[in-house]
Amino acid sequence: MDFRGAHIISVKQFERADVDQVFQVADNMEPYAHREKVSKVLDGAILGNMFFEPSTRTRVSFGCAFNLLGGDVRETTDVKTSSITKGESLYDTARVISGYSDVIVMRHPQVGSVAEFAKASRVPVINGGDGPNEHPSQALLDLYTIKKELHSRQRAIDGMHIAMVGDLKHGRTVHSLSQLLFLYKDIKFTLISPEELRMPTEIVAELKAAGHVVIETDDMETGLHDNDTVYLTRIQEERFTNKLEADIYRGRFRLNQAIYTRNCQPNTVIMHPLPRDSREDANELDNDLNQHPNLAIFRQTDNGVLVRMALFALILDVADKVDLSAKPVGWYTESRFE
Amino acid sequence: MDFRGAHIISVKQFERADVDQVFQVADNMEPYAHREKVSKVLDGAILGNMFFEPSTRTRVSFGCAFNLLGGDVRETTDVKTSSITKGESLYDTARVISGYSDVIVMRHPQVGSVAEFAKASRVPVINGGDGPNEHPSQALLDLYTIKKELHSRQRAIDGMHIAMVGDLKHGRTVHSLSQLLFLYKDIKFTLISPEELRMPTEIVAELKAAGHVVIETDDMETGLHDNDTVYLTRIQEERFTNKLEADIYRGRFRLNQAIYTRNCQPNTVIMHPLPRDSREDANELDNDLNQHPNLAIFRQTDNGVLVRMALFALILDVADKVDLSAKPVGWYTESRFE
Amino acid sequence: MDFRGAHIISVKQFERADVDQVFQVADNMEPYAHREKVSKVLDGAILGNMFFEPSTRTRVSFGCAFNLLGGDVRETTDVKTSSITKGESLYDTARVISGYSDVIVMRHPQVGSVAEFAKASRVPVINGGDGPNEHPSQALLDLYTIKKELHSRQRAIDGMHIAMVGDLKHGRTVHSLSQLLFLYKDIKFTLISPEELRMPTEIVAELKAAGHVVIETDDMETGLHDNDTVYLTRIQEERFTNKLEADIYRGRFRLNQAIYTRNCQPNTVIMHPLPRDSREDANELDNDLNQHPNLAIFRQTDNGVLVRMALFALILDVADKVDLSAKPVGWYTESRFE
Repeated sequence: MDFRGAHIISVKQFERADVDQVFQVADNMEPYAHREKVSKVLDGAILGNMFFEPSTRTRVSFGCAFNLLGGDVRETTDVKTSSITKGESLYDTARVISGYSDVIVMRHPQVGSVAEFAKASRVPVINGGDGPNEHPSQALLDLYTIKKELHSRQRAIDGMHIAMVGDLKHGRTVHSLSQLLFLYKDIKFTLISPEELRMPTEIVAELKAAGHVVIETDDMETGLHDNDTVYLTRIQEERFTNKLEADIYRGRFRLNQAIYTRNCQPNTVIMHPLPRDSREDANELDNDLNQHPNLAIFRQTDNGVLVRMALFALILDVADKVDLSAKPVGWYTESRFE
Repeated sequence: MDFRGAHIISVKQFERADVDQVFQVADNMEPYAHREKVSKVLDGAILGNMFFEPSTRTRVSFGCAFNLLGGDVRETTDVKTSSITKGESLYDTARVISGYSDVIVMRHPQVGSVAEFAKASRVPVINGGDGPNEHPSQALLDLYTIKKELHSRQRAIDGMHIAMVGDLKHGRTVHSLSQLLFLYKDIKFTLISPEELRMPTEIVAELKAAGHVVIETDDMETGLHDNDTVYLTRIQEERFTNKLEADIYRGRFRLNQAIYTRNCQPNTVIMHPLPRDSREDANELDNDLNQHPNLAIFRQTDNGVLVRMALFALILDVADKVDLSAKPVGWYTESRFE
Repeated sequence: MDFRGAHIISVKQFERADVDQVFQVADNMEPYAHREKVSKVLDGAILGNMFFEPSTRTRVSFGCAFNLLGGDVRETTDVKTSSITKGESLYDTARVISGYSDVIVMRHPQVGSVAEFAKASRVPVINGGDGPNEHPSQALLDLYTIKKELHSRQRAIDGMHIAMVGDLKHGRTVHSLSQLLFLYKDIKFTLISPEELRMPTEIVAELKAAGHVVIETDDMETGLHDNDTVYLTRIQEERFTNKLEADIYRGRFRLNQAIYTRNCQPNTVIMHPLPRDSREDANELDNDLNQHPNLAIFRQTDNGVLVRMALFALILDVADKVDLSAKPVGWYTESRFE
């Protein structure tokens, strides 16, 4: 695809070459995100960071990525303060807001809303999450993390074994990640979930049709054996129509130091899209693994900045110009990135 | 008036020459707002964007205008998070906040609050809307839009015919726009509203005293005949003491393709301050006109950025310096402004 | 202490030499905060302004301070929009957010939360207030104000007489200020409060042990005699378990022009951490003193920007570089700082 001026709405837009291109640009962003160099390549550009559903992490990550390229950020954080409550259509909101900014990130609770918004927008729009549907930059940063983690362990995405654990029915991130992995070869998926929270059958069918191996199980311990990556998820209680039902599943699948050591290969990478629920009754990924070298969850969020910088740079066609305006960082900064 | 260091509280501050000056500076802002050039003339300046009543559109428009001149924006979006709830006076808030910023935009639900705030402020204050009272930058952008739209149709503001439609009682924008048009000559106003939502009598009297023609009617179709501009408004339900009463009027006056073709001159400009209420029972301006070349509503919001840039530039006395720091835009941008 | 890369969590971290260093750097910030010069020394740096409890004044003050050094600000203003409500630990929040920014300011309602957050953070953290516990930048700006006010009256902190008035039990600012004054010599504290809202006994004991004189009284008028500084506070009704109890004390101690003239030395400096409660039933510091030259409350908030700039400059080790990137202010600005 041609990223220049493009909307990023769904992972289904991408060919494998597109993903490779994002990752290559993301690699180049490292000195900037890691505060070795400062770039002003987007000096004067404005990001409209439109969050019509709250999300501190994703909103701040996009905002920082834009700042790190030298641009300014205008934002909104609440649907209740918007004209949408006065009956304004997404069409109108898009026409108006796209007159203010050079690129828009939009999160909205309603499935399909961001695509509808993008159709009316006069500037490129990145989907920052449209309800339970899509969140393409999360899938890209997950895959980018897998690639880097496996690479440093002399492995590759093609041929890898991955276990996905937890609420695979409602988890937007596992859906999107699966759809990206679809583009790769010979992957073995072990899908560990309660019977009632299994991965949607159409995604499973697609993966199988593409030649991947898919095993579904509700037995976590055996499912954890022989994987390159374990991807854990939170029970998405906010997506349950009956909140009490979420209580049944919360805490059922947990990874901690003992279970990891007993079942996982010594080099298995541990991932989680975050937030993880660290309350006692949930605790799907125990804090006793916090110092484990294979715990990649904070490298994941750090990678999110790189991937989002790459998307902005590609869409606004400055990927080749970033280094031209680079200057060294002038303040004290400790090496804090792994 | 001397804009340098001035507060902008009310349209009543302006002589016709002042309006002309704002519009001339606004014209010069076009290459910056349209992303042909970048200016850093306000590099280092801080806008205090103080919204003690929600308004995504106006807040982001002011913020972008300031960013486009190179300045930074600090803002607040909610009265509930402010010290005003702990008994702080507007005097104190103004004294404090004006120590943080170079210029302040303030929106507040209470009539007269922004004027009171400005009196205590140590920096210039722009009224971003004080309840049902004034919103001068909106009136200026409306008039600027009328001027540009008529100009491209070989007409002028002097001598024009304008219809205002809808809730003329509560609509802050039609009040302020009328008071600006007061400065011009020989205008014919056709005021179309339910009997109970007529334009305040003192405004009608002022317009007549200045030699303008004012016709009041509740018959929309005949009222639409023979106008250069039709300015539609939403029923301002949030200003009704009895919300149920608003239901009586909602949807009574609607403009759509058929009504437009049947009643309007082929060159009649269609305006609306937005948000328009696109819900079925309201729909005062139908989406079937969205592609109509005379629909100026999104040019209106785009013009808002130009007018707000002009106000900042005049108040901070940099109107003549904008071009000195100009550089070309370095990222991909499609021509998206008409 | 070595400020470079340090967390600022508590006033107890400081030796007298540290306070002196902050104040010296704050002095150097004046031309920038007063809009005589512009600095870009932190151009490219990002402040994570994380307010998990509302505070317009403190949040905007920190944000402006960072902007005035040339940096960008990303922020959050509400705990309800954060992952903390989905069970995320402070550890996780800190690990994630510290990957986005170069320095973090955090306010949080829970005592000790900011210290816990800082332990997990990969970048320096400044405590912007952890519930009723600490707010070190406020204590520093209070003391900085006292120093400057007394200096201009040919007096010094050592040997001064200070009266603290009001809710000395719940007032975080009087606690922290006392703990800073502890570092100085021969101070006479007159603590004026209702019997039930006295300064915590451990703080009084510490002050006495350090050789300071402490007098406790509930008689305001005699307590006001013979002071260099009077520091008034609001009844902190939000800290009372029984809100009705706050009503008993509200309005009991008030300073106005008549009381001031009757009891205070002609040169007594009047301070208040703000917000002051100007409602009739409270009004602990009357508006009839607003024009009084000894009223230092707005110089106090102005000084807050200087002190916060100094903290950022010291932590990020750019205090010596600020002037290197200085350029003159290019827009109209009246001298508005005293």
